[in-house]
Amino acid sequence: MNIIRNPKRAQWPELIERPAFEKRALEKGVKSILEDVKRNGDGAIRRYTRLLDQVEINELQVSEKEIENATAKVSSELKSAIKLAKQNIETFHTSQLESMKVVETMEGVSCWRKSVAIERVGLYIPGGSAPLFSTILMLGIPAKLAGCKEVTLCTPPDKNGNINPAILYTAQLVGITSILKIGGAQAVAAMAYGTETISPVDKIFGPGNQYVTKAKQLVQQSGVAIDMPAGPSEVLVVADKSAVPEFVASDLLSQAEHGRDSQVLFLADNEAMIRKTLEAMRSQLEELPRKEIALEALKNSKAILLGTLKDCIELSNVYAPEHLIIASEQPELWMDQVENAGSVFLGNYSCESAGDYASGTNHTLPTNGFARNYSGVSVDSFVKKITFQQLTEKGIRNIGPAIEKMAEAEELFAHKNAVTLRLKALNDD
Amino acid sequence: MNIIRNPKRAQWPELIERPAFEKRALEKGVKSILEDVKRNGDGAIRRYTRLLDQVEINELQVSEKEIENATAKVSSELKSAIKLAKQNIETFHTSQLESMKVVETMEGVSCWRKSVAIERVGLYIPGGSAPLFSTILMLGIPAKLAGCKEVTLCTPPDKNGNINPAILYTAQLVGITSILKIGGAQAVAAMAYGTETISPVDKIFGPGNQYVTKAKQLVQQSGVAIDMPAGPSEVLVVADKSAVPEFVASDLLSQAEHGRDSQVLFLADNEAMIRKTLEAMRSQLEELPRKEIALEALKNSKAILLGTLKDCIELSNVYAPEHLIIASEQPELWMDQVENAGSVFLGNYSCESAGDYASGTNHTLPTNGFARNYSGVSVDSFVKKITFQQLTEKGIRNIGPAIEKMAEAEELFAHKNAVTLRLKALNDD
Repeated sequence: MNIIRNPKRAQWPELIERPAFEKRALEKGVKSILEDVKRNGDGAIRRYTRLLDQVEINELQVSEKEIENATAKVSSELKSAIKLAKQNIETFHTSQLESMKVVETMEGVSCWRKSVAIERVGLYIPGGSAPLFSTILMLGIPAKLAGCKEVTLCTPPDKNGNINPAILYTAQLVGITSILKIGGAQAVAAMAYGTETISPVDKIFGPGNQYVTKAKQLVQQSGVAIDMPAGPSEVLVVADKSAVPEFVASDLLSQAEHGRDSQVLFLADNEAMIRKTLEAMRSQLEELPRKEIALEALKNSKAILLGTLKDCIELSNVYAPEHLIIASEQPELWMDQVENAGSVFLGNYSCESAGDYASGTNHTLPTNGFARNYSGVSVDSFVKKITFQQLTEKGIRNIGPAIEKMAEAEELFAHKNAVTLRLKALNDD
Repeated sequence: MNIIRNPKRAQWPELIERPAFEKRALEKGVKSILEDVKRNGDGAIRRYTRLLDQVEINELQVSEKEIENATAKVSSELKSAIKLAKQNIETFHTSQLESMKVVETMEGVSCWRKSVAIERVGLYIPGGSAPLFSTILMLGIPAKLAGCKEVTLCTPPDKNGNINPAILYTAQLVGITSILKIGGAQAVAAMAYGTETISPVDKIFGPGNQYVTKAKQLVQQSGVAIDMPAGPSEVLVVADKSAVPEFVASDLLSQAEHGRDSQVLFLADNEAMIRKTLEAMRSQLEELPRKEIALEALKNSKAILLGTLKDCIELSNVYAPEHLIIASEQPELWMDQVENAGSVFLGNYSCESAGDYASGTNHTLPTNGFARNYSGVSVDSFVKKITFQQLTEKGIRNIGPAIEKMAEAEELFAHKNAVTLRLKALNDD
């Protein structure tokens, strides 16, 4: 981890620059997969699964029997842990449900908005070495709370054509309506366009590698919505003298072990904290199974010494981290200054893994600086907020003349006439 | 307007198909404008303004003096109308501000989310024959309520280099911080990338022609957010026997006069209503200054007779209209069945122009079927909802073991260790 001491403000943008990726070649490859699936449906899906996942899948849909078998294979300790997490995530996300408030803006003019579930949503859960069942909780729970009717889940099969039991257990626990053994860009295509056996969805959620991310970006142009643009995961830790170096080290490593492209930034207002944290990281690293990955990620990571904690928070706001940890015994002094971040962890006991798994907040968050202009996933992500209005006779009398005036000034005379006719009918009565 | 009687359900998708636009050529042209502005800044902006708006603009920023002069030119009647609309829009949008609710998901685990304004937003207001000052109300008011620090507005100058007085008056009224005389794709580029004199923004809002729309779609890929994908404006009116044909006709024409590509659908459960409405349209059309445009739009429009009002609402849900008018004396019988719509107008006195201008709801709404998966603009569009969490010692004790279990199952041992170290420190105390 590189240490940078007291950089000038002019250097900040360069210090926090995220690596750029060349995407031209990627786009071409992903486009051809999307086109292929659009044209050839299930046949194309099976072909890509053979080619990329190296397994022949006849039945794309996971059967009841497979789910039952999987459930039997998950340990009761893990089941209890997942249920505890589910409970907390449900509690927090339930608080996001918006109740309908009718607002009378003027006498006789009532306006309100109503959250209506997006009917069909698709969740993508990556495969690979570890089964990311926690992401099923983070996407499936708000989908069900919102009231989505169809919740489709795509995840790649292993070389034996199976899905990890923890994935299947969690999927049935949160009420996923259909689980499909499909991975990569072809899964995104299947959910966006539909095939002979797969119904298309209205919005696609979930993390994935660069192919999945590119595919989500591309299908967006044909009418499917996506949760948010994605990039490598990141954490920024701000620590003052009251932070605990071992804890901070473990949080930085949590992020570093995610992937070789993970972004880790550590800001502190005192050199001793940086030195002790880096020492703790070195010793903790030795024990980690994913040490190689973490080391690779740390090559691009930086510890930055700044004059004050205020500077640290300001630099963090410029960076706009996905995860921001304020490691301090008095985080409340600083939390109101946070302007750009996906999710904020306050104090020495709020480790990022709490939010990753079980505290209740969502872990699907904006990366790559998108915390400036996007929110993380919430119940809001699974609904449309439809506005309604109802005017009484009194209402149209109250606002009609203003509408007529404005429509006339915008030279939209049919708009004006819609009011004029109504006012006239009322006056004729 | 074509009349279709009692179509079979299998025909529905074809009936409501929206026209597709060929966009390949468009994309190339817009990309080159974006690249040019990115590279050449103000110089490129001035060059495109000369070429496309046919005027030489030295000072891109509108001066205080120009705003003062404009304010003097707007009639006091129009000012009052705009102020009434502003008041109602403020009232309704204020009700959308979310208060912070701290949720204790388990003892010692507190989670909440906080709405934080997107710092810098850009609004695009089209030029052309009519000054769309109403859109400034619809975008500027929620931006200010959300607390956005910089609100930039771009709108094309006329051939004398001026901006319509009603635009300038409304912009200063709602508190726009910077008004720029720039139109088209070059305005989107200026707001996305910034130039020597223009600060870049984090999110771009507002309607526009196909160049503006394409430019918004493209800059999205370089980190700028946009309000929503756009398409031609549309209305779907559902009428039962209690509707008033003259009113319905005026609402259908309001939409038709918007543009040649406007979409107008009229669904009714009785033939007499269709016949009378079409008659009323024919006579109202004669009086309209924008008759030619409306006639052109009506060529693609359809009146569809269906068996029941339930069928009408179901077809509307499949179409997912931007505006849905339920023209009936008993709209409350049907409003709960609405699943996909941008904004809904209930009863015989709730004309679309009420929501377009002054009732309080927003008129920036999802078109082109996006009402299936997008909401209209609201205060939400101008904020990020940042989640926060704080765990006490008790809190980490309560959820720590579950996190350890889950992290282990996902093979993320640094995540597990972040908890283990903390629990150990507490037990050692």
